[in-house]
Amino acid sequence: MGVLGASGYAGRELCALVQRHPRYELAFATANGRRGETTELPGGGSVTFIAPDDVPLAAAALVFSALPHGASAEWVQRVRDAGARAVDLSADLRIGNTDADIVYGLTEARRDEVKGAELVANPGCYPTSILMGLLPLLEEGRVAAGATISVSAASGVTGAGLTPRADLLYGEVTESFRAYGIGNTHRHLNEMRAFVAEEGVDADLIFTPHLLPTARGILATMTVPLMAPLENPLELWQRRFSNERFIEIVKTPPETRHVAHRNVVRITAHVLEHMRHPTLLVLSAIDNLMKGAAGQAMQNANLMLGLDEALGLPA
Amino acid sequence: MGVLGASGYAGRELCALVQRHPRYELAFATANGRRGETTELPGGGSVTFIAPDDVPLAAAALVFSALPHGASAEWVQRVRDAGARAVDLSADLRIGNTDADIVYGLTEARRDEVKGAELVANPGCYPTSILMGLLPLLEEGRVAAGATISVSAASGVTGAGLTPRADLLYGEVTESFRAYGIGNTHRHLNEMRAFVAEEGVDADLIFTPHLLPTARGILATMTVPLMAPLENPLELWQRRFSNERFIEIVKTPPETRHVAHRNVVRITAHVLEHMRHPTLLVLSAIDNLMKGAAGQAMQNANLMLGLDEALGLPA
Amino acid sequence: MGVLGASGYAGRELCALVQRHPRYELAFATANGRRGETTELPGGGSVTFIAPDDVPLAAAALVFSALPHGASAEWVQRVRDAGARAVDLSADLRIGNTDADIVYGLTEARRDEVKGAELVANPGCYPTSILMGLLPLLEEGRVAAGATISVSAASGVTGAGLTPRADLLYGEVTESFRAYGIGNTHRHLNEMRAFVAEEGVDADLIFTPHLLPTARGILATMTVPLMAPLENPLELWQRRFSNERFIEIVKTPPETRHVAHRNVVRITAHVLEHMRHPTLLVLSAIDNLMKGAAGQAMQNANLMLGLDEALGLPA
Amino acid sequence: MGVLGASGYAGRELCALVQRHPRYELAFATANGRRGETTELPGGGSVTFIAPDDVPLAAAALVFSALPHGASAEWVQRVRDAGARAVDLSADLRIGNTDADIVYGLTEARRDEVKGAELVANPGCYPTSILMGLLPLLEEGRVAAGATISVSAASGVTGAGLTPRADLLYGEVTESFRAYGIGNTHRHLNEMRAFVAEEGVDADLIFTPHLLPTARGILATMTVPLMAPLENPLELWQRRFSNERFIEIVKTPPETRHVAHRNVVRITAHVLEHMRHPTLLVLSAIDNLMKGAAGQAMQNANLMLGLDEALGLPA
Repeated sequence: MGVLGASGYAGRELCALVQRHPRYELAFATANGRRGETTELPGGGSVTFIAPDDVPLAAAALVFSALPHGASAEWVQRVRDAGARAVDLSADLRIGNTDADIVYGLTEARRDEVKGAELVANPGCYPTSILMGLLPLLEEGRVAAGATISVSAASGVTGAGLTPRADLLYGEVTESFRAYGIGNTHRHLNEMRAFVAEEGVDADLIFTPHLLPTARGILATMTVPLMAPLENPLELWQRRFSNERFIEIVKTPPETRHVAHRNVVRITAHVLEHMRHPTLLVLSAIDNLMKGAAGQAMQNANLMLGLDEALGLPA
Repeated sequence: MGVLGASGYAGRELCALVQRHPRYELAFATANGRRGETTELPGGGSVTFIAPDDVPLAAAALVFSALPHGASAEWVQRVRDAGARAVDLSADLRIGNTDADIVYGLTEARRDEVKGAELVANPGCYPTSILMGLLPLLEEGRVAAGATISVSAASGVTGAGLTPRADLLYGEVTESFRAYGIGNTHRHLNEMRAFVAEEGVDADLIFTPHLLPTARGILATMTVPLMAPLENPLELWQRRFSNERFIEIVKTPPETRHVAHRNVVRITAHVLEHMRHPTLLVLSAIDNLMKGAAGQAMQNANLMLGLDEALGLPA
Repeated sequence: MGVLGASGYAGRELCALVQRHPRYELAFATANGRRGETTELPGGGSVTFIAPDDVPLAAAALVFSALPHGASAEWVQRVRDAGARAVDLSADLRIGNTDADIVYGLTEARRDEVKGAELVANPGCYPTSILMGLLPLLEEGRVAAGATISVSAASGVTGAGLTPRADLLYGEVTESFRAYGIGNTHRHLNEMRAFVAEEGVDADLIFTPHLLPTARGILATMTVPLMAPLENPLELWQRRFSNERFIEIVKTPPETRHVAHRNVVRITAHVLEHMRHPTLLVLSAIDNLMKGAAGQAMQNANLMLGLDEALGLPA
Repeated sequence: MGVLGASGYAGRELCALVQRHPRYELAFATANGRRGETTELPGGGSVTFIAPDDVPLAAAALVFSALPHGASAEWVQRVRDAGARAVDLSADLRIGNTDADIVYGLTEARRDEVKGAELVANPGCYPTSILMGLLPLLEEGRVAAGATISVSAASGVTGAGLTPRADLLYGEVTESFRAYGIGNTHRHLNEMRAFVAEEGVDADLIFTPHLLPTARGILATMTVPLMAPLENPLELWQRRFSNERFIEIVKTPPETRHVAHRNVVRITAHVLEHMRHPTLLVLSAIDNLMKGAAGQAMQNANLMLGLDEALGLPA
């Protein structure tokens, strides 16, 4: 396996997953600005970066691209031209962002398409958390027609990457909390709207992301107006995900620390009291770097290569 | 001035405010379980607790009660019987929680009633943040009839008090984020619903509180369906609060660290794009212990005693 | 395997290690005050506690005791009487704290004694970090005679346990740093002094522990006056630990996050400039719950039962 | 007053102090790379930066330079040439770093020299914490001749400034602790050694700084071999600092949160048990941006201009 753009948070997590994988080996890890440097990986290993131009793309059966949005699509094309499969972690090839018909790797929702695919666009971290939380409601047509799904979500700082920024220094983030990308303008909205439409649901989406004073973790807090009351909402999720190894349905509000370093989505749902229209509260938590990026990418890679999707993944 | 229940977070903050106030002196500070103990106050001072039974209630012109919900009302009655004015920081006497007609001390909304009052029920921390953010919309009747105002709010840990609890230990809170009191069941909902009704607004309210890995600060993220589009929403707040010294209208999302240790509410409002119905995003940040508790209590006390409301308060 | 006192931080970590171990199963986990409760474990599993009196002690080949100091020794005796092996994580049976001749499970220093032992006293978290850092200097007699080894160490909050304490609430620990147990009076000093004496070294020890605003991790910062200058100090550690899988000798200062959730000690050593007497700086980092408690206990258990010491341990 | 280099942490703190000062006004605040930008200040105010070349240096009676080491000395000279007094917060003009005879503004130790001075070199943050803690021992000649004073100190992240660095991002600092500048090589050592020598004390100094996962605060943990035993060590500090308003002698270990945002040094001292030579533990805590930078600079400025040194300072 190869990793392009390996020096960022998702890239390093991918390298660590490949190194610990029982069936894969890390053929190369590129980082243009840090060629020759050796970096410590989460969990104790290390990796030495090479320049992308020196990469034997054909040496890997599958290449992960954790390159920045905008720069990734071109490299993914090179990977494909060299005959290797690719999982693109950037937004470049995701639904809502491209007209091309590329498999959208929200694994539990699109597993059949991912199996054996040669190219998969890995979902964004927020969309993974949000869409997995909403999935049973979308698939079963439970959302009130023309309704507004309101999502307030919060992410740890690693979601913003490792590139130095003054506003992400420890002293600027600790003991604070703030929204960003407000006004329903976040890049991830296209992706989520496109998926909701693909599921045939006619609803507006409000999405307000926030910056948490944590390293990892996303929690999505969602209110969903329903067509009709649901007495035992959890059953809907339990039924839909009964065979899933990476989805955890819980009765109490999920905590981001309980999904940290794990490739899972943890979901709960609750009827909202004192409302004139039936409305559900859905809470969904993931590790933005695992199920929200590298973990789901590996889950997809396993399926693309015909292996058990759970191989090498911490659940 | 006296402080009942002075050993908790709000009580200690009150003691510190009284000690630094240019016109008040601290006559007594009670803490039943810690009588005789001396504790450091925020900002460097200290206070020695006495038992509530030893308190010369009549020695103070005004007494703050920071006693627990349930226990406070009775002591506030004793204070009133002794002839002193009282500000009750508990929920006991707030609108929505009692049938008695007691001034609700959301200062900027009820200033005329607070002036000269002998008894004021100090608002909860979440309601202060949320209702101050919504105030111009409520007062001007801008909310769509029968609509749902959706509030996702997050508070630092001091909001839960100083009583030892395993789930609030540092090791259980750091690097995590979770909702609590879910399903629209939080104690503060009655208070907020009663206020919204008092303003003559017919709307449902969804309120989902979260626990932040910070000591202080509340951020309320609110989406409000409007009767009609608002082109320049900030003007509404700027106009309503133009003479207010403790309300800051800002153009970018407020950060809780910028209101820490200050008696202010910082608010922004933004039109949500891509919606079929006109909807506003309102963000409102406070320090839960200052404008959300001790600071607003002092602001009210100043008004009750005929002084400039800003005396002794950090803005 | 059984775990006594399983509801604390070390106990839960032990349960998680046993559950993921390729050769062991968890026969029982006791917690007197929480019998019947089910708790989530680090990494995603869960465990249900039973009362210690209901425990079939003989059902386990080996029992870990994570009971509090003072209460542990008696239960360890019951375990031994029932015919099971035991690893005691409390201080009760450690060198310096008892006259009995019980194997001290500082694994890399006492491996031959641990192998096949029926009872092992697991070292304290601070002593593990400090003594492993000093080991080559002690064993080779490099410390100047009559000198003072000065240790300033800092630990994350989980080192103080899960019992609710107001001074360990999130709001009291975040954004702060302080020493505790000062004046060379900490309980762990006996243990360290006894080990240093056992190694035949004549030196005074200064030990000042500090509370870090982190959940996990210990860093020990040690200055050691030497008999004679050492030009290439790292070689000493590299040589001594060349075959060790859980000791990492590094060239730059170890960070506690790099040893988190791992059963390793990470050490560096550096010559101090501008000194009239040759003096070394030694830095040693561990995860207080892994190599400092549950991990080392499992490493010892593996050796006691004749298995590869690394089985089931995250390195 | 003017502030050069106002966009960093110390510069912004200086601007805030000047704005709240009862006797000063802020004439200008420069930031070369951010000219024209308006920034929020701690406590709620704001400032707009101008370019240093546009500065009317003569318009201020006194100018603070918070410019980087190396760049500051030249600007301080321009300030002096323009006829204004100057406080230099950089290391450029401090003892140990220059041969020029410039007043070293460790206020409580050099007050008589600071009074009326036209140029003062403001001490470093670590030296302020450490030298103030050691002062009574140094002045009274209590340190054992030829002894080694061992200092392990830890600082919050703002000590490293606001310039973006990947290793200071929130995600890289939270939940970790590490030493840096090891081997007795930190820039502040010259300054401390020069001061110790000026006091006529013959001792070696070991200084190991650490990076704390906090925004603010320095704690210095010091062990000092004594000439002779001291039975009641606190008395030494209480006597020396009996008239000081910014020095707090305490009986329990100082916490950095208790000195945050305050211009104080909080000190305790304790006899170390179990030692063959009499040795003291001294703990000293400051806010690195207040008493360790802007606060002490303002204290010095007040003295230089003949005012009460406490004016405008939070104690």
